Amino acid sequence: MHRERFYTLSASCPDRVGIVARVSGFIAEHRGWILETSLHAEAPRADVKESEVDGRYFMRIEIKAASLPFHLAEFRERFRPLADELEMDWSITDSAVKKRVVLLVSKQEHCLYDLLARWQSKELDIEIPCVISNHDTFRGFVEWHGIPFHHVPVTADNKASAYAEVQRIVEEVRGETIVLARYMQVLSPELCAAYRGRIINIHHSFLPSFVGAKPYHQAWTKGVKLIGATCHYVTEELDQGPIIEQDVIRIDHSDSVEDMVRYGKDIEKTVLARGLRYHLEGRVLTHGNKTIVFR
Amino acid sequence: MHRERFYTLSASCPDRVGIVARVSGFIAEHRGWILETSLHAEAPRADVKESEVDGRYFMRIEIKAASLPFHLAEFRERFRPLADELEMDWSITDSAVKKRVVLLVSKQEHCLYDLLARWQSKELDIEIPCVISNHDTFRGFVEWHGIPFHHVPVTADNKASAYAEVQRIVEEVRGETIVLARYMQVLSPELCAAYRGRIINIHHSFLPSFVGAKPYHQAWTKGVKLIGATCHYVTEELDQGPIIEQDVIRIDHSDSVEDMVRYGKDIEKTVLARGLRYHLEGRVLTHGNKTIVFR
Amino acid sequence: MHRERFYTLSASCPDRVGIVARVSGFIAEHRGWILETSLHAEAPRADVKESEVDGRYFMRIEIKAASLPFHLAEFRERFRPLADELEMDWSITDSAVKKRVVLLVSKQEHCLYDLLARWQSKELDIEIPCVISNHDTFRGFVEWHGIPFHHVPVTADNKASAYAEVQRIVEEVRGETIVLARYMQVLSPELCAAYRGRIINIHHSFLPSFVGAKPYHQAWTKGVKLIGATCHYVTEELDQGPIIEQDVIRIDHSDSVEDMVRYGKDIEKTVLARGLRYHLEGRVLTHGNKTIVFR
Amino acid sequence: MHRERFYTLSASCPDRVGIVARVSGFIAEHRGWILETSLHAEAPRADVKESEVDGRYFMRIEIKAASLPFHLAEFRERFRPLADELEMDWSITDSAVKKRVVLLVSKQEHCLYDLLARWQSKELDIEIPCVISNHDTFRGFVEWHGIPFHHVPVTADNKASAYAEVQRIVEEVRGETIVLARYMQVLSPELCAAYRGRIINIHHSFLPSFVGAKPYHQAWTKGVKLIGATCHYVTEELDQGPIIEQDVIRIDHSDSVEDMVRYGKDIEKTVLARGLRYHLEGRVLTHGNKTIVFR
Repeated sequence: MHRERFYTLSASCPDRVGIVARVSGFIAEHRGWILETSLHAEAPRADVKESEVDGRYFMRIEIKAASLPFHLAEFRERFRPLADELEMDWSITDSAVKKRVVLLVSKQEHCLYDLLARWQSKELDIEIPCVISNHDTFRGFVEWHGIPFHHVPVTADNKASAYAEVQRIVEEVRGETIVLARYMQVLSPELCAAYRGRIINIHHSFLPSFVGAKPYHQAWTKGVKLIGATCHYVTEELDQGPIIEQDVIRIDHSDSVEDMVRYGKDIEKTVLARGLRYHLEGRVLTHGNKTIVFR
Repeated sequence: MHRERFYTLSASCPDRVGIVARVSGFIAEHRGWILETSLHAEAPRADVKESEVDGRYFMRIEIKAASLPFHLAEFRERFRPLADELEMDWSITDSAVKKRVVLLVSKQEHCLYDLLARWQSKELDIEIPCVISNHDTFRGFVEWHGIPFHHVPVTADNKASAYAEVQRIVEEVRGETIVLARYMQVLSPELCAAYRGRIINIHHSFLPSFVGAKPYHQAWTKGVKLIGATCHYVTEELDQGPIIEQDVIRIDHSDSVEDMVRYGKDIEKTVLARGLRYHLEGRVLTHGNKTIVFR
Repeated sequence: MHRERFYTLSASCPDRVGIVARVSGFIAEHRGWILETSLHAEAPRADVKESEVDGRYFMRIEIKAASLPFHLAEFRERFRPLADELEMDWSITDSAVKKRVVLLVSKQEHCLYDLLARWQSKELDIEIPCVISNHDTFRGFVEWHGIPFHHVPVTADNKASAYAEVQRIVEEVRGETIVLARYMQVLSPELCAAYRGRIINIHHSFLPSFVGAKPYHQAWTKGVKLIGATCHYVTEELDQGPIIEQDVIRIDHSDSVEDMVRYGKDIEKTVLARGLRYHLEGRVLTHGNKTIVFR
Repeated sequence: MHRERFYTLSASCPDRVGIVARVSGFIAEHRGWILETSLHAEAPRADVKESEVDGRYFMRIEIKAASLPFHLAEFRERFRPLADELEMDWSITDSAVKKRVVLLVSKQEHCLYDLLARWQSKELDIEIPCVISNHDTFRGFVEWHGIPFHHVPVTADNKASAYAEVQRIVEEVRGETIVLARYMQVLSPELCAAYRGRIINIHHSFLPSFVGAKPYHQAWTKGVKLIGATCHYVTEELDQGPIIEQDVIRIDHSDSVEDMVRYGKDIEKTVLARGLRYHLEGRVLTHGNKTIVFR
């Protein structure tokens, strides 16, 4: 069943009386048909020091495109005064315009196969303008799908120039979102800053446990009874960015590190795909180092 | 952390343009501070024959009591014209008024202990005006908590009079919600009808699998790899009422029926407690034989 | 980390005193190094009518190949008298001999991509002598992997001849296991009988709920709060064969049938892959219509 | 269904050829009927530095008491030479002798109610010779169940003497296992040492994340998408002892710290009960800082 064209408004602003009334009033005034509305008020907490002093309001609204008497450009124009008054961070997107997502991979196949299967079947209805890898392993597989493949080797010595090259390619293909599909490399601070909130990583542990390298070895050594994976935005600090999605699977003493790796891969790819989808559909709003995810 | 007093508006109505704008506009006009808003539009589906022909809109809104310039009675008075215009089914409740919940139990302890622990700690901030049982087993335990206990035996011959007695007691203590905490008896159609949408049962299987008696034996015979429990509203048809909450736990071939019963009890009590809480907080709206649960 | 070559003995027999002692004694006598042992005694139950009258014993033992002074043929020769005495159903396999698995697919991509990713990375260390489909959709994708692809159309009229052709191909390529990777067709009784215990299906519901067609529509209509998938052996009776593996994922009222299909696909492919792996590693023993799965 | 009397042998020893054959041979020789056998070989790993250099073998065997021609004392006598030869750590217990379990609680009710419900219904078929608490809150509730209650206040100044008093009481009532049912106090090193491997704690996070105080606040601040609980043996180092059991539950951005506490309590009590049961049934064997749990 194909969905009708719709716009997605994602926004946050300081909490106050009347936000929903003002925004939904604006939409109703233009006879906009709301398909889905998600709202969240984050109250301040005196007992958590990282908590913001004032409350903040988050929203995501899907509006049937055909129900409005104007297009997106005019929506933006007309909505701006209200958004400014409410001190909103906001964006609105059009379901008819495909997002451009660049995949970065290394030598592990599971997330790449998984994402291309979703892309091929239009479950993920995106453009993949190219795949970039520090190895040439998946060139044939990617190119068979009709997607350009760029091999950008990364060594201890060439990191700066390698990431500059990655950034150049992403810019050239007008990539909007970068997915580290088990890329296994720490990006440069420049790249992290340039695409803040638009680089998505899958880490193979249930963060904050087992940051860094070889998390399954760490998990095996610790003797945990569940292992997991975490999809998060990449920031300059390794494995510390806002968490978008997580999941776990039960293991036991009979599972070796290799078994854990195998079970873990299944969690990694589904968690990455869910997190990426939430991001692309404007379902993820960040608040400091946390996320609101309107599932 | 004690929450401030608030009102909870739960409502559903035919879907149309402007519902949110109208309702939130009404609240904003009176400077009502919205704490939490959940909305859901159920679109009609051509491909599912049980689907309603027209769409329906569901909402739940928590409003800080102190932010409004009037009390609940006046809210109801002022809101009614709008509700009528929108053809709403609606109710509004006050967090300061405790719900009155009657527990029906039999000889199994787990749900009873669990609910009384939650009541004792005020996690469930309710009145339990009495516990009714077809056995005298838990009289001492219940009375120790200061709660009246009624023993109403049920036999093959006295069902009609027994359930009339149960209903009489519930009415006398002004019970609003009836919880079948593993009561293990099929209520009379009269009782089901009198408290439609207000009787909550916990069935010890993941419905619709294993309806009726001995579901763990059925599950063992079938060889399923997960067992579950289902919290649902009671209707005249056995184990067929709208499902509120479900959960499962993994088992394997080494688990006997008795092991499954034991694992199952843990799922039953948590699923019942979650479902009951959702109901009491006005988070559950029904739509035909399905529920919308605004977690 | 590559595992050393090993043999896997899977067996079941009537329960009696001394089975483990006899079997492990045989292995120890030849200085066999046991890597992994799983044992299960299924006691008879008077209260379950389908239960066997007598108990039955199940075992799976991995033995390091290099620790034994003879090869598999001689192991079989020497072990047979004991196995006969214990009235065993048994088999022993060699980790160095790859299993031959034929995939049957239709037009859905997720299980096919998933299995080929596992095969490509040697996570599933099998031979795939061919893929058979009733549609030509995935010819290019399969052939790119160097695997022969057979298009065997199935219509209302040609079922008998189509399944005869499928069987002919499987026999020709010496397929040992047949995987219905969302094949969406009901096999002929002849094929089911010929490969009893060697055809593995993935059904897109948590059986025994929602047998047959469109299980996600059924689940949506029923309003369940979790959806699942079931990997099972195929028998003549639709969706009734012994269950190997199941899993579920939480959904809620906001999920449409299409959302459920999408979440469900992730469960389907992991459940199928786990079930297939258990089967290929000799971890699944059947007992009537149930399975013992030595995870 | 009541189980017949049985003995449980739990043991570990250095791995070598023939362990299972020797032990099961000993049992078979005396016509012992084995009800359940669990075995595990832990192979050494070169790539994990904490890994033991040599492999170790773990086993748990249930034997029907009536099938043996002698009682436990004689079993011990006769088995000892073999155990010594295999350099075993071992113990054997009798299902007819109830374990003596002392509960330590503070002011939270959920684990206490939960454990007493299981004890009352004989799901946990143990003796509870007393409950000890640093508060007097639950005296009435515990004494109503016919269990002695000891109030041992703990302050910043009296820790040494308080824990000496706790230890004195446990010794006086011949407590074998100590359960910290949300006791919320750090025991003295002396007590930890005296009851090594016999003190079980429930920590309200999915360890190793969120060690120490206020883990739900930590989880809320970090923005994790699942919260959990960990049942572990208590060692001198806070929240670092061998993990017996863990579980998690999904939360989202709409859950406050208080919601997380509420969801968490349900996980805590079930994880504690499962872990305690595994311990009491001899299903937990430790290996360095890890556990083998023969579920």
